[in-house]
Amino acid sequence: MKGVILGIAPEVHIVDLSHSIAPQNILEAQFLLQRAEPYFPQDTIHVAVVDPGVGSSRRPVIVRTQRCIFLGPDNGIFTPWLDGAEIRHLNRKEYFNPKVSGTFHGRDIFAPVAAYLARGIKLQDLGSVITDPIRKSIPQPQIKTGEIIGEIIHIDDFGNLITNIATEDLAGFRNPIIRIGRKAIKGLVNSYSDVTSGTLCALVGSHGKLEIALSMGNASQALGANLGQNVIVKNS
Amino acid sequence: MKGVILGIAPEVHIVDLSHSIAPQNILEAQFLLQRAEPYFPQDTIHVAVVDPGVGSSRRPVIVRTQRCIFLGPDNGIFTPWLDGAEIRHLNRKEYFNPKVSGTFHGRDIFAPVAAYLARGIKLQDLGSVITDPIRKSIPQPQIKTGEIIGEIIHIDDFGNLITNIATEDLAGFRNPIIRIGRKAIKGLVNSYSDVTSGTLCALVGSHGKLEIALSMGNASQALGANLGQNVIVKNS
Amino acid sequence: MKGVILGIAPEVHIVDLSHSIAPQNILEAQFLLQRAEPYFPQDTIHVAVVDPGVGSSRRPVIVRTQRCIFLGPDNGIFTPWLDGAEIRHLNRKEYFNPKVSGTFHGRDIFAPVAAYLARGIKLQDLGSVITDPIRKSIPQPQIKTGEIIGEIIHIDDFGNLITNIATEDLAGFRNPIIRIGRKAIKGLVNSYSDVTSGTLCALVGSHGKLEIALSMGNASQALGANLGQNVIVKNS
Repeated sequence: MKGVILGIAPEVHIVDLSHSIAPQNILEAQFLLQRAEPYFPQDTIHVAVVDPGVGSSRRPVIVRTQRCIFLGPDNGIFTPWLDGAEIRHLNRKEYFNPKVSGTFHGRDIFAPVAAYLARGIKLQDLGSVITDPIRKSIPQPQIKTGEIIGEIIHIDDFGNLITNIATEDLAGFRNPIIRIGRKAIKGLVNSYSDVTSGTLCALVGSHGKLEIALSMGNASQALGANLGQNVIVKNS
Repeated sequence: MKGVILGIAPEVHIVDLSHSIAPQNILEAQFLLQRAEPYFPQDTIHVAVVDPGVGSSRRPVIVRTQRCIFLGPDNGIFTPWLDGAEIRHLNRKEYFNPKVSGTFHGRDIFAPVAAYLARGIKLQDLGSVITDPIRKSIPQPQIKTGEIIGEIIHIDDFGNLITNIATEDLAGFRNPIIRIGRKAIKGLVNSYSDVTSGTLCALVGSHGKLEIALSMGNASQALGANLGQNVIVKNS
Repeated sequence: MKGVILGIAPEVHIVDLSHSIAPQNILEAQFLLQRAEPYFPQDTIHVAVVDPGVGSSRRPVIVRTQRCIFLGPDNGIFTPWLDGAEIRHLNRKEYFNPKVSGTFHGRDIFAPVAAYLARGIKLQDLGSVITDPIRKSIPQPQIKTGEIIGEIIHIDDFGNLITNIATEDLAGFRNPIIRIGRKAIKGLVNSYSDVTSGTLCALVGSHGKLEIALSMGNASQALGANLGQNVIVKNS
């Protein structure tokens, strides 16, 4: 993909966002993209190739927001950015590689189109507007009076367990108890180092979400935790 | 290596091709390089440091083709590009690092020479022409009437099994059955998504080679497959 | 982090040094940084974010040497460069991200400050001089007449065991025997290929340190070796 991009647009900066998304996991990719996007410059072109449907009739799409451009498969990965965006079906084959494989559209469609965009090709030249993109969202936590039932949506390289419970969801909880499996954690801390080494803690991490961590250790391994596992917040 | 390159040629673009080649596996490196090379711009300098003989008397070489330049050990890694190429033994030490270690010629020889090339140093200044480079090739499949016996030459990050059987080898097979171990797969599909989730399939992948995949899964793990294992194609 | 940097200083080159440092291992990070730093250009800005104390009262610091600049937590990681350096506490928040998380100062403090430095902001504008930085050093080997007791301080991606025993420590040893666990290796070689495949060997590697390797194999796996394990050199 990088060879293709640099062949068309030699001056671009290419940044690898992550190579550790679980294969085919569209929602984990969406979460990481959602986390990173605000930190990239205005008009960045994001190419996302978590693409279980590659080679099927799923459409390749471009999504233009006020801030940036996304290129990738129409499989729901860009759902958080669809409202108010300009969305087009990439169907102008003159901007693809001459030969398009059935298994690697990253290289054969998204990389060359991204490079032509970087060189100044206009969106309207890349394909026709569509209004029915696929939508797929990270599950929302269930919020009741005095209780939130959330789940683990990402496990990072340190084994920290990131949930779908956001800062604002926690507003009403003065003395929260966070439960995962049989473990209960009292209260939130501000950083991993607020507790002694080897202690489980809960905090709002750099994702803006509630996460569970093991100070100087790996919470995922210690708890045998999995993506999708419930995390429950109550008032003590 | 990147520090050395940027110290000499601050304007170059550096791209990492792969960090997951099996240690010392020259032929897997050759396969991945062969796959990627056509997608890089004209005159790209490819540095390949799969180098089990580092520090021995094996020569460091440069290989100049019509399209691009290769730098690396003379261990057969560049065999597909040798015919018709200009090949030189890198023996002009003024273009090496001042101190050359016995164990990391990537940093001490290939990185600085690549950077000087990018700055415009001529090939003839880097060493003398040689005509006896080492050759080492990926094994060819055995092709008989009605049968091909190939083998797995690469397992990618998704667990797909890439064989040495090329598209053209399959021309005579109207209704191929592909066998691996005790499993038999009927026919070829165009993409991973042509079969239902959890089904084994065979297809010509983005490498231009026959590969075996498990839709939405990991074929390598499911089959316990290994590099070198036979894959057999017959007519049904 | 890269998005933040490129948003402030679009022209910089960003190089990833390593993503395989053991979590929270300050001394392994120090060792790899010490190895790489001499190979980077004059005035390189090195950002090091092995940061177990993130979010605590540990200071973010900048260290300016004759050759280069380091940015990271004040946790001892920069100890080899502190003597004679200009050291400042990064406390000018106008150069941080608007919102600083308690868990990711790499993104919120070090990345933006590094980018402003690359754009020419002066050190004295970033914070006040400090003279009491934290120091933490890789353990030195015990050197006696006729014996050195060292330890493994890094295991590389090939499974080679790098010790804290330097070339100069070995000067008095004409016919060294190197012991690890129950294994004894006679003499040093110059490169991995000086011994037959599958043989253990000892050599001074590209780090300038004594290392133990298994030719064409993985010494770490074969010996069940660990960071911190003793390696002993005697005269035979």
